Amino acid sequence: MRYELYYWPTIQGRGEYVRLALEDSAADYTDKARGRGGIASMMRMLEGRGDMPPFAPPFLKAGRLVIGQTANILHYLGSRHGLAPKAEAGRLWLHQLQLTVTDFVAEVHDTHHPLGVSLYYEDQRAPAKKRTAEFWIERVPKYLGYFERLLVAGNGAYLTGRKATYVDLSLFQIIEGLRYAFPNRMKAFERKIPALIELRDRVAIRPNIKAYLESDRRIAFNEDGIFRHYRALDP
Amino acid sequence: MRYELYYWPTIQGRGEYVRLALEDSAADYTDKARGRGGIASMMRMLEGRGDMPPFAPPFLKAGRLVIGQTANILHYLGSRHGLAPKAEAGRLWLHQLQLTVTDFVAEVHDTHHPLGVSLYYEDQRAPAKKRTAEFWIERVPKYLGYFERLLVAGNGAYLTGRKATYVDLSLFQIIEGLRYAFPNRMKAFERKIPALIELRDRVAIRPNIKAYLESDRRIAFNEDGIFRHYRALDP
Repeated sequence: MRYELYYWPTIQGRGEYVRLALEDSAADYTDKARGRGGIASMMRMLEGRGDMPPFAPPFLKAGRLVIGQTANILHYLGSRHGLAPKAEAGRLWLHQLQLTVTDFVAEVHDTHHPLGVSLYYEDQRAPAKKRTAEFWIERVPKYLGYFERLLVAGNGAYLTGRKATYVDLSLFQIIEGLRYAFPNRMKAFERKIPALIELRDRVAIRPNIKAYLESDRRIAFNEDGIFRHYRALDP
Repeated sequence: MRYELYYWPTIQGRGEYVRLALEDSAADYTDKARGRGGIASMMRMLEGRGDMPPFAPPFLKAGRLVIGQTANILHYLGSRHGLAPKAEAGRLWLHQLQLTVTDFVAEVHDTHHPLGVSLYYEDQRAPAKKRTAEFWIERVPKYLGYFERLLVAGNGAYLTGRKATYVDLSLFQIIEGLRYAFPNRMKAFERKIPALIELRDRVAIRPNIKAYLESDRRIAFNEDGIFRHYRALDP
């Protein structure tokens, strides 16, 4: 089966967590909205009435199924493509971890848009500065400290043991994103999360991920995505 | 099996979506942190190292499983207690809807804490006012409009058909919360979501929910929870 991924074609955004899972497992997929007529077809599906329209991109068409919400898509793909255990207990635990990544991603976005998504960053610079300061004092240590603690306790190559899961791929993306958006802050912070940095390095050289990152399928970070580099927010 | 729910004992918060599901299905459960020594035991589990510690409350102990993240808990409970379909397609769809509720709940919280959770509301009144205005102009119509559209298209008593699911219970809670936090704004807005209001009324008279709401197990809304009533935010 060829999957169809629907997501904004010019950003990594939330779609990137799905792209990484599809690429790592060499799944057969099309990034629909990057093809001709793709955005129009994505919008039609979002506006659909009768047939379970998703709330927002990304969503994945898998045969007759249309699956929305990033973590839900990964939950679906994971055990089918060797990126999650098959037993329920392991799947639930992994999904909990991914939902925690999801929460973190939303907080990353709020650093540059604390007053809301419909206003420009330029109209909320001062609150963004405050929110970002709080984010680095309180939230980054809490979230990344949690994953670091699990990695150290687990003592495996990957977060849940010897095998990579979609959560490892997502944590790779988190580290890459923070490095892009906050290079100065990250430089100082990385010494606190050595196991996460090692995990990031391990994911980066997985053959399919490496090939993907070098391809033009990998969209560059930019200031329309979740991770944005604004100098005022990274003193 | 008796479930153990772990959540902050003085607020509805995110735990309430789980409480409503447990109550509606008359599941056997203890609200652990409301009992003697409960908070200490909750903190110990959060600080655990070896045994899959959840990131944050709420989490549910189900035999040997410890399940974190509200939507994940509901995903687990749903099909076991008649609050979700058993087939995978239906479960994924329902979970997508619940994750959309989750996103909305986070945005509700940000209305009074746009600069971050570690600062008091009193220290972020002006940004809270702006964020709340944006929330009511852009976000409430988008989210509640989505659920209203699905209800109208589905034409059933509940969101996904004739049977109530955990998502219906969560939508009840959303309406109750918005009414508490923003009575003036809701009064004006409710005419735009007649089907959701009918759904709220239908959930409120379900016998187990009705009994729960009248019991002292239902914690009152207050200004430590997600839905907070601040007059400045509800002109």
